[in-house]
Amino acid sequence: MARIVMKFGGTSVADLDRIHNVARHVKREVDAGHEVAVVVSAMAGKTNELVNWVQQMPKVAGANASFYDAREYDTIVASGEQVSSGLLAIALQSMGVDARSWQGWQIPIKTDNAHAAARIVDIDGSELIRRFGMGQVAVVAGFQGVGPDNRVATLGRGGSDTSAVAIAAAVNADRCDIYTDVDGVYTTDPRVEPKARRMKKIAFEEMLEMASLGAKVLQVRSVELAMVHKVRTFVRSSFDDPDAPGMGDLLNPPGTLICDEEEIVEQEVVTGIAYAKDEAQISLRRLADRPGVSAAIFGPLADAHINVDMIVQNISEDGSRTDMTFTVPSGDADKALAVLEGQKQVVGYDVVQSESGLAKVSVIGIGMRSHAGVAATAFKALAEKSINIKAITTSEIKISILIDGAYAELAVRTLHSVYGLDKT
Amino acid sequence: MARIVMKFGGTSVADLDRIHNVARHVKREVDAGHEVAVVVSAMAGKTNELVNWVQQMPKVAGANASFYDAREYDTIVASGEQVSSGLLAIALQSMGVDARSWQGWQIPIKTDNAHAAARIVDIDGSELIRRFGMGQVAVVAGFQGVGPDNRVATLGRGGSDTSAVAIAAAVNADRCDIYTDVDGVYTTDPRVEPKARRMKKIAFEEMLEMASLGAKVLQVRSVELAMVHKVRTFVRSSFDDPDAPGMGDLLNPPGTLICDEEEIVEQEVVTGIAYAKDEAQISLRRLADRPGVSAAIFGPLADAHINVDMIVQNISEDGSRTDMTFTVPSGDADKALAVLEGQKQVVGYDVVQSESGLAKVSVIGIGMRSHAGVAATAFKALAEKSINIKAITTSEIKISILIDGAYAELAVRTLHSVYGLDKT
Repeated sequence: MARIVMKFGGTSVADLDRIHNVARHVKREVDAGHEVAVVVSAMAGKTNELVNWVQQMPKVAGANASFYDAREYDTIVASGEQVSSGLLAIALQSMGVDARSWQGWQIPIKTDNAHAAARIVDIDGSELIRRFGMGQVAVVAGFQGVGPDNRVATLGRGGSDTSAVAIAAAVNADRCDIYTDVDGVYTTDPRVEPKARRMKKIAFEEMLEMASLGAKVLQVRSVELAMVHKVRTFVRSSFDDPDAPGMGDLLNPPGTLICDEEEIVEQEVVTGIAYAKDEAQISLRRLADRPGVSAAIFGPLADAHINVDMIVQNISEDGSRTDMTFTVPSGDADKALAVLEGQKQVVGYDVVQSESGLAKVSVIGIGMRSHAGVAATAFKALAEKSINIKAITTSEIKISILIDGAYAELAVRTLHSVYGLDKT
Repeated sequence: MARIVMKFGGTSVADLDRIHNVARHVKREVDAGHEVAVVVSAMAGKTNELVNWVQQMPKVAGANASFYDAREYDTIVASGEQVSSGLLAIALQSMGVDARSWQGWQIPIKTDNAHAAARIVDIDGSELIRRFGMGQVAVVAGFQGVGPDNRVATLGRGGSDTSAVAIAAAVNADRCDIYTDVDGVYTTDPRVEPKARRMKKIAFEEMLEMASLGAKVLQVRSVELAMVHKVRTFVRSSFDDPDAPGMGDLLNPPGTLICDEEEIVEQEVVTGIAYAKDEAQISLRRLADRPGVSAAIFGPLADAHINVDMIVQNISEDGSRTDMTFTVPSGDADKALAVLEGQKQVVGYDVVQSESGLAKVSVIGIGMRSHAGVAATAFKALAEKSINIKAITTSEIKISILIDGAYAELAVRTLHSVYGLDKT
């Protein structure tokens, strides 16, 4: 007997047939004797409809701009999960499974007061656990809680993943299964490299790098939360036949386990290759090399909501002038250049150079902490394909390389192969 | 300065433009210095969509019949008012009016545990009143409260009227305005008698008879509640221009006031003519005239969910046998006859006679309590038009007459005229 939290996203509960399919997945675990809590998103499309109404209402009411009260936004948008949680409870009951829906305010899932982007502060899991003992499945509305003002608070887009992990931590679950429209986490994007393999396990830290680098499987915050509370999190497909062989396997179901690195016995040096296209590079030449220069550059860019990614600054030769390079999404390049133009007097650079249409390719692996030569292998492999490296940044478990966008797929395949990721 | 509760139904909040129109009505009262609570239904069509999902879900999940948990029904269906209350709060804020939405569990509106048909047990109006003092408008999700199990409970269809009256009682409002798609209560159906007049005032008791007789303006329970708590309730149109002259008149706005009879100084003898078509009459001849016979007839009919309306039993000539006549909706006549056939041994009647296609016409007026000859006037007027009366029942403030359905409109117009209702 285990305690399992299962999470299903919007496409998995898009209509009544799919909700029935979700109920079959749940029934399988219940029939196996497990204690189960299910976390659901709103039916696909509903959240967008509700958000659109909230955004349009001020204009329809004659306001000049679309400012709205985030507390009302939360009240309105959270209704989507209220509906899907109730429908799943009915589906389970119809299949003979004792179940009830729980809204955030009923458990309660307490959040802070940052409406529309709230963070979970505390979850009282005692009533859920008491009902597990009675054989009752908890169907929890994801994405929401209740703030200190006793009003509904939502966690922001993708927040249902976070709800699921937080509930798993609160009820001390053995596993948190995130059912999604992919069947696990791959060594790289299978559309780029058909030889990409689904990983059996990946460490939390690696998953954080994979997720924030564009492997859009899990919300980053949910992975952070899982890492802090050591929640064993499983990514698997909601479109698999719920009753196919092995689906109910407690230790090795199909999918990818995200877990503490200590649980990964045979640690690979490199576990995955991530990439992001449509990057632009901006270089400032011959900056004054003094305290405050970085702040003068990146503060105004952040104020303009420009998401800066790689930052490379080299040590200046004579201690007076240096070069700074960073990347932004290509679509923000012109805006970034305009911001920099306005900061020219403060920053005191000589020349700005920029180039769009670049790609960032990243090699990720906890094992590289203790292995030398990982970076050199990448550089050599790319050189053999005549791929020019424009910039490099590294962290303990990641090497990111900026290249011409036209070579992105070739670079991904080359690196995937050179680290042996295409071999089982 | 007055304290006003305003209620808007589903057609009044059907889309963002109409919600804006509702907000204009509210702003008018706020600008006049009044304290305002608004009660809203779900956007038209939403409740039906949600109810349909609830009813379909068990079948989709493979259940033989459509049984569902009423607590989940309530959770799902109440989401409709959650959305409309939030949107109206945003519309008001966009127009510079301080407002916030309130769900039933937040106020709280406490109900009993009869999910899907709950009754309000208690409303704590103190927080709403405190915020009135701060100039804040309360936008309350109608149709819902929270049960002793801390779960959402709905009041059943039309329950938003009841929510509004109950909140008006809880905050001791001066008036409860029910905005609807008609502009008041008429002396009879204007589609039958174009000379029908909108009443300025009608007593609670009269409105109860009008409403339950088919003048479908207000939910019967809300009128009962208004009568008990002496809530002055105003029926008016939500489609009038919110800023037309007289709309904000505190004492005489356009519409019909439903109030205590003591407030109606010049009491008319007859205030309205109601009618119901498609009635069927069923007569049992030569029943045993002994205790328990009525129960043996009407108990099984109630168990079969057949709504019996008029019941006429005459005193038997010799104390041993009597006749009993009652009406049911025409569509239920065959079912009723089958039930009676099954009860024949118990009831011990001789013959059953039935006739469909009848109409019931009712004359209503509190003044008839103290006026003789009201019934005689009706009988004489109908006789002059050669309309045959099949059955008669009377209460203190109502005379109901069963006639051939073909004469329904003629009878309504004749009675409307003979009591002078077409004269201002």
